[in-house]
Amino acid sequence: MDPVLHHNFSAGAISSSASTLLGQHKFMEMIRTQNISFRERISSRVAVKCIASPPVEDVPALAHRTKVARNEHVAKLQVGYLFPERAQALSTVQGYTGYGAEQGDKNLRAAIASTFYQNLGIEEDDVFVSDGVKCDISRLQVLFGSKVTMAIQDPAYPAYVRSSVILGQTGPFQENGERFAKLEYMKCTPDNDFFPDLSNVARTDVIVFCSPNNPTGLAASREQLTRLVQFAKDNGSIIVYDSEYSMYMSEAHKPRSIFDIPGAQEVAIEVSSFSKYAGFTGVRLGWTVVPKQLLYSDGFPVAKDFSRVICTAFNGASNIAQAGGLACLSPDGLKAMSQMVGFYKENTGIITETFNDLGFKVYRGVNAPYVWVHFPGRSSWEVFSEILEKTHVVTIPGSGFGPSGEGFVRVSGFGHRDNVLEACKRFKDLYK
Amino acid sequence: MDPVLHHNFSAGAISSSASTLLGQHKFMEMIRTQNISFRERISSRVAVKCIASPPVEDVPALAHRTKVARNEHVAKLQVGYLFPERAQALSTVQGYTGYGAEQGDKNLRAAIASTFYQNLGIEEDDVFVSDGVKCDISRLQVLFGSKVTMAIQDPAYPAYVRSSVILGQTGPFQENGERFAKLEYMKCTPDNDFFPDLSNVARTDVIVFCSPNNPTGLAASREQLTRLVQFAKDNGSIIVYDSEYSMYMSEAHKPRSIFDIPGAQEVAIEVSSFSKYAGFTGVRLGWTVVPKQLLYSDGFPVAKDFSRVICTAFNGASNIAQAGGLACLSPDGLKAMSQMVGFYKENTGIITETFNDLGFKVYRGVNAPYVWVHFPGRSSWEVFSEILEKTHVVTIPGSGFGPSGEGFVRVSGFGHRDNVLEACKRFKDLYK
Repeated sequence: MDPVLHHNFSAGAISSSASTLLGQHKFMEMIRTQNISFRERISSRVAVKCIASPPVEDVPALAHRTKVARNEHVAKLQVGYLFPERAQALSTVQGYTGYGAEQGDKNLRAAIASTFYQNLGIEEDDVFVSDGVKCDISRLQVLFGSKVTMAIQDPAYPAYVRSSVILGQTGPFQENGERFAKLEYMKCTPDNDFFPDLSNVARTDVIVFCSPNNPTGLAASREQLTRLVQFAKDNGSIIVYDSEYSMYMSEAHKPRSIFDIPGAQEVAIEVSSFSKYAGFTGVRLGWTVVPKQLLYSDGFPVAKDFSRVICTAFNGASNIAQAGGLACLSPDGLKAMSQMVGFYKENTGIITETFNDLGFKVYRGVNAPYVWVHFPGRSSWEVFSEILEKTHVVTIPGSGFGPSGEGFVRVSGFGHRDNVLEACKRFKDLYK
Repeated sequence: MDPVLHHNFSAGAISSSASTLLGQHKFMEMIRTQNISFRERISSRVAVKCIASPPVEDVPALAHRTKVARNEHVAKLQVGYLFPERAQALSTVQGYTGYGAEQGDKNLRAAIASTFYQNLGIEEDDVFVSDGVKCDISRLQVLFGSKVTMAIQDPAYPAYVRSSVILGQTGPFQENGERFAKLEYMKCTPDNDFFPDLSNVARTDVIVFCSPNNPTGLAASREQLTRLVQFAKDNGSIIVYDSEYSMYMSEAHKPRSIFDIPGAQEVAIEVSSFSKYAGFTGVRLGWTVVPKQLLYSDGFPVAKDFSRVICTAFNGASNIAQAGGLACLSPDGLKAMSQMVGFYKENTGIITETFNDLGFKVYRGVNAPYVWVHFPGRSSWEVFSEILEKTHVVTIPGSGFGPSGEGFVRVSGFGHRDNVLEACKRFKDLYK
């Protein structure tokens, strides 16, 4: 469908910017292809109410349903607000998927699907362009609501935990245990190859899993991810898979996407970002994949509710950033991104070699831009403080990522080469 | 404080991109001005816990406290996560306010404060740069949580209601009443000059108020806003004031900001945007003002919790958009914005004249880009449908903004002049 016409009916009609003209030809074509009177369509607003029931007719009877209950508050919206449903119906003319500006530029969504998810069962309309992983993680928490239970890797990127706490999914912070009540911490340490022992993980509604991992730098294998997907399927859980570092992977046999695992489309959401690929950290561009096969326990597609949440909470990524993202996915852009990733991986190699030479146990980011350095028996904060005070280099204390990060610091390969070389020189002076 | 140093300690140290060097000179200066050992500061992490109690020492004993309870879930964060507090403490060196990249570029925040809030008691550190009103409204709802009660104008911009529903602040949709339970609808109709009769409005924790109003186009007077502020103060409520159309105001005697009303700093938050001023609708740039004088019932500053929410849920507006915003606030930029606003106001005038000539009762957007046209006794959707079918022009049915919008359609002045003229010609043909 002509994107101009789409704009008229969905983005334009919903947003506040519409006093829009339709060409006579387009309009008549639209009426004709619908084979019903446009007035009838507009007048039959009662049809909207049907959406509130699970659209069982769209879902195969034997389709996998997660055991995650649909957020009752998001469900309330459907009966009350006619705008999105109406505009969505209008924009289905000629098969357009009905997503508006909030979901991102159509061409960019198509380019993301074909670049990163070719042959993985992910289509353009499963891709939602975002302004970054951190923002979409928070919107996903709003989507799930306060009643779900959640598991996170320990250590993990702090925004997963913080957004869960803010939404009220957790209990209070328990100081002795250094963790929040009601949150399932999946321990990832050298003892288990940084992959959780799933036989010791309690069932939760949502499992947040980042691979290649921030901060540990480790990427899960195909066999490990297959177990994770089966674990989610058995438990009726939804995996939120953060793949924002996957372009840093060197080990070719490891999957770049959770959707490379058969059946993951029924149990997983994937969040990712241009930030770490294209030096876009301040430009704010990412994406989230919510496959249409992912269903709540009542059979309702998660993607439909996510679309409602982002239409309410988001107005789309900056169009300038989206144009940049599209350029990144051209052959030249992909080449440039690959070179940039290669440069940062060289930095990571230099840092790894430095700490190796100094006799530290280093979990090198072969597949990530981070180096996870072990200082057994010492406090992360103490080591962070020592490095900061004596070398004036900022690292990240591992315990800031969770209790199992204690004794580690994370050193990042993101930086100018001169700075990395100077930092490594100072590390050598300190720990020689 | 040098923004580079600030970046090192707050944004850099929190985000994942830090392996950062500090210049020796800067570092020693920082140590010196603190007059304590840096190691001591880092080691005394227990001090962070003090923040969990209301900082009564910062708040004058007689300061107004709203009756809005602090969101217990946001409060939980403080004891558990050391990163923001630690980085915030580090970055207070030489008086820097401690806000990082999430709160926006320091120069842009200063320019917003001096351009729009000169002499209104709003400082740079009260301003949080956002990616738009819609996004920040949703983050404010996350801030307030599910237990607050809320009042909205009826009619109102749908995102206020939808975000409240999603967070669980409302009851179910009541079909007969065309409204959500537990949400206070403040009726705004020609009968009350589109300003609610506050003697009939129930007390709520939060009052969302948009002026100049979308969709009605009406701007509240100084006397009306003074009553609103007093109403909030008497009730211990927080006003969320949406001023995104204030640059469209022609009536010079009416306030452009809620903070033009004495005492509003103790009861109000203001959200605004570059979208409607600078043609930035797709660029995504706005701001929210949370004055440090605004306190929860326990005396805790709302701004400190808002800072936590945006640090968790947001990574800052696109730096490209922020650079554009800063350019807009230069003398040349302000002139260009004024010209653009003038152009759209001419469009609004043309539309108003058209409907006036046709004999309709029009509530003209003298102070806004919208025209609110009355079709007494008719359904908004029926009129919308009639106009769409017969003229192929998209208007917005007034009932989509709430039950009191029934019988109206909103016509927007945002558009190319040729399109507006053509649309008006078709309106004349239809209703002559």
